[in-house]
Amino acid sequence: MGLINTIINLELIKEIAIPSPSKIVLLVIDGVGGLPNPETEKTELETANTPNLDQLAAKGICGLTDPVAPGITPGSSPGHLALFGYNPVSYNIGRGVLEAIGIDFELQPGDVAARGNFCTVDETGLITDRRAGRISTEKCAELCQLLNRLSIDGVKVFVCPVREHRLVVVFRGDGLAPEVNDSDPQQIGVTPKPIVASNPESNRLASIANQFIARAKATLAGHHPANMVLLRGFSKHPHFPSMGEIYKLKPAAIASYPMYRGLAKLVGMEVLKTGATIEDEFTTLKQNYPDYDFFYLHIKGTDSAGEDGDFKRKVQILEQIDKTLPELISLEPDVVVVTGDHSTPALLKGHSWHPLPILLYSKWCRPDRVSEFSESACASSGGLGRFPATQIMTLAMANALKLTKFGA
Amino acid sequence: MGLINTIINLELIKEIAIPSPSKIVLLVIDGVGGLPNPETEKTELETANTPNLDQLAAKGICGLTDPVAPGITPGSSPGHLALFGYNPVSYNIGRGVLEAIGIDFELQPGDVAARGNFCTVDETGLITDRRAGRISTEKCAELCQLLNRLSIDGVKVFVCPVREHRLVVVFRGDGLAPEVNDSDPQQIGVTPKPIVASNPESNRLASIANQFIARAKATLAGHHPANMVLLRGFSKHPHFPSMGEIYKLKPAAIASYPMYRGLAKLVGMEVLKTGATIEDEFTTLKQNYPDYDFFYLHIKGTDSAGEDGDFKRKVQILEQIDKTLPELISLEPDVVVVTGDHSTPALLKGHSWHPLPILLYSKWCRPDRVSEFSESACASSGGLGRFPATQIMTLAMANALKLTKFGA
Repeated sequence: MGLINTIINLELIKEIAIPSPSKIVLLVIDGVGGLPNPETEKTELETANTPNLDQLAAKGICGLTDPVAPGITPGSSPGHLALFGYNPVSYNIGRGVLEAIGIDFELQPGDVAARGNFCTVDETGLITDRRAGRISTEKCAELCQLLNRLSIDGVKVFVCPVREHRLVVVFRGDGLAPEVNDSDPQQIGVTPKPIVASNPESNRLASIANQFIARAKATLAGHHPANMVLLRGFSKHPHFPSMGEIYKLKPAAIASYPMYRGLAKLVGMEVLKTGATIEDEFTTLKQNYPDYDFFYLHIKGTDSAGEDGDFKRKVQILEQIDKTLPELISLEPDVVVVTGDHSTPALLKGHSWHPLPILLYSKWCRPDRVSEFSESACASSGGLGRFPATQIMTLAMANALKLTKFGA
Repeated sequence: MGLINTIINLELIKEIAIPSPSKIVLLVIDGVGGLPNPETEKTELETANTPNLDQLAAKGICGLTDPVAPGITPGSSPGHLALFGYNPVSYNIGRGVLEAIGIDFELQPGDVAARGNFCTVDETGLITDRRAGRISTEKCAELCQLLNRLSIDGVKVFVCPVREHRLVVVFRGDGLAPEVNDSDPQQIGVTPKPIVASNPESNRLASIANQFIARAKATLAGHHPANMVLLRGFSKHPHFPSMGEIYKLKPAAIASYPMYRGLAKLVGMEVLKTGATIEDEFTTLKQNYPDYDFFYLHIKGTDSAGEDGDFKRKVQILEQIDKTLPELISLEPDVVVVTGDHSTPALLKGHSWHPLPILLYSKWCRPDRVSEFSESACASSGGLGRFPATQIMTLAMANALKLTKFGA
C-alpha cells in the first residue's frame, strides 16, 4: 500500500459514496489486541468474559487487520488515520501538530506548532540535561506562563505545558512556513542548534523562532534547572480531505482524551462533548444518535492498562465495555464495527505490531463461523481474513449500503 | 505493490530499525512448497515426517506467503530479494549480472556482464543452431579459455564457462554503460545482430562488444559446431541499499551454491565459508553464531529434487533438514523463520506460483492453532494469513524487538 494506492482509493470511494439515512458505529477499543498470558495461553480478550461481543461476533463477520503493515508497530496517530481510511504512511501529521492536538490546543490554518522541552544549560550554554531534571507538570505550567503570548514581529507565540518538562509552542501569524530544523540536538554537551530555514519561505519562521528562543533563554536565566528550551518537529496543521467529502457522511466523535478528539477533528468529524467514563461515552452516543450517521467511539482504558503491563485491569475494562455494549446494540445501528487502533499486549507494556481482531456486524455482512471475539478465533475462522485497516471504512460503507457500483 | 511502495517501505523500516543483540535465523528451504501426490493427496512436506518442524510450528505462528504476487512463478533471484525485503519487481538484477553471480564471478563496480551462448553459424554467417549442439561443459571451458582475458581498447574481457553451451562475458574498464541491445536474435536462419548503443554513454561498450564478437568469430572459426557466440542481457552490478543500512543488522549468509551467495552479497551480507551438506551448513551456523545477529541459511536440495520431479527425494531431504533442525533450535535464536523462496512441486518439475508455507517462532509471536508445518495447515489455520514475502523481514524484525514505533 503506498501513496498512489491510497489516493486512488479515496478518490474512488468519493466517486461512489452516496448519502443515506443508514448509520455506522465504529467502536475503537484502544490497544485491544494482546498476547497470551503464558500461564493460561489466553490473551486479555480471550480471558475476559464478553458475552455481548461474542454474540455480535456470532451474528457478524470477523477478521484480523493491520493498521500500517505486518510487523509495523503504529503510534496512535497512524493507527487512527488507518481506521478512518487514510493511508498513515502518506498522510503524515507533524510531531509539533500532534503534540498540540494532544493537549486540545485549537490550531488555526497557518499556525506552526513545535514540540518543546525545558532543558538545563551550563554557564557556557552547553546542554547538561535535555529534560531539566524532569520538572513537575506544575512547574512546567508556571514557566510556560512566563513565555506565553509573546508577540514577535507581528507573530503571536503560544506556549503551553504538556507534562513534566514537555511543552508545545505555537506560532501564529502571516507568512509562516515550517521547513526549519530542530533546535534540539538530541544530545548533551553541545549547545542548542540555531534554527535555519530549509527554503526561503521558511526564513520568517526561522527568524521568529530564534528570537523566541533568545527571549526564553533570558526569561528562564534564573530558573535552573529549567533555564532553556529546545524545540523540534515544527509543522503545520495538515489539510486532509474530510470524511464528509470522501464518504458523504455526517460523522461525530466521542472520545474523552484530547489526542483522539484532535485526530477526529483533523478528518472533519464533529467532536461531541462527553464525560470520562465508558458509560458516559455510550450515553453521549445515545443522546446524539439521531443527529449523525457515523459515530467514532473511542475507549482509552484498555491501552493504558496494556501500557502499564496490567493484564488483569485490561481484562476488567474489556468486561466493562462488554457490559455497556447493549446500550449501543439497542440503538440498532445498520453497521457496527468493533476493533482497535493497534495492539497493546500487557506482556509487552506498549504498542505492538500484532494485527487486531475486528468484527463487523450488519444485516448484509455474510456471517462466518466465528462465535467469539478473540484474536485466535478471528485468525483461524474469520471470514474477513487479514486485511489492511485502511479498508475498514470501505467495508463499513458497503455494509451500510452507502456505496454504489463501481463501473458499469 | 509498486516502486513507490517499496521505497516507502524500506525508507520507513530504515527510520524505525534499531540495532539490538537479539538474533534472527532465516532458514530458506529452496522450493519448499509442493503439490499433493495424486495417490496420497499429500504434498512433499505433508508426506515427510518432520516432528521438529511441526513442534516449532506448534509453538510459533504460520501462514502462506507470495514472493511476487499470486499466480507469479518467481525465479530464484526475485524469490530471494522478496525474502530479504526488497520488492523484486522494482529491484531488478540484469540477466548478465545474475549469470555472473551464479558462477561466483567477483563483479567489480563498473563491470558490465552479459550472458552468452556458443552457437553455430553457416558459411554465410546465418545461425543454424543457437546452442551449438549443446557442447559439453568441458568443451565450453576449453573454448572460453581461448577467448578469456582479451584486452580491447583498454577494456579487459573475461570469458567464463557456465554449463554446456552457456558462458558469461564480463567487460571491465572505464566508461562502460550497459544500455545496448542483445546480439542474440533468439531465432535461427538470421545473422547475429550487431550491438547498438541505446544512448551515447553506451557507445563505448557497444564498440568493444562488437570488436569482441568479431575476434571471437575469428578465433572460433575452426571449432564447428561452436563457431560463434551470441550475447544478451548486458547489465551492471546494481547498487541496492544494504541490509545493514536498512535493518541495522550484521547479516551473514550460509549457502553452498554460488547463486545464493551472490544474491546475499548483493544485499550486503557477509558470506560465510561452508561445506556442501545440510549438516555442514548448520555447523557453520553454530560456529559463527556469536558474531552476527542475522543468518540466512539456504538449503538447495529440495529445489533440485523438485526440478527433477523426484517427489521421494524431496521428501527425504525435508526429513534430513528436520533431523538437523535441533542444531539450530539449541542456539535459541530470538526469532526463527522457516520458509522458501518459491514452490517447486515435484509434479510440475519446476518452480511454481503456489504460495509458500511459512513459520515464524519468537517469544512474542502470538501462536496460532497450527501444529504441523504443511501447506494445508498453514492455509487453513495460519495466524499470519496470506501475505507478501516482502513483509517477512519486517515481521522478523518486529518479533526480534528491533523496530520502534511508527508515528506518535
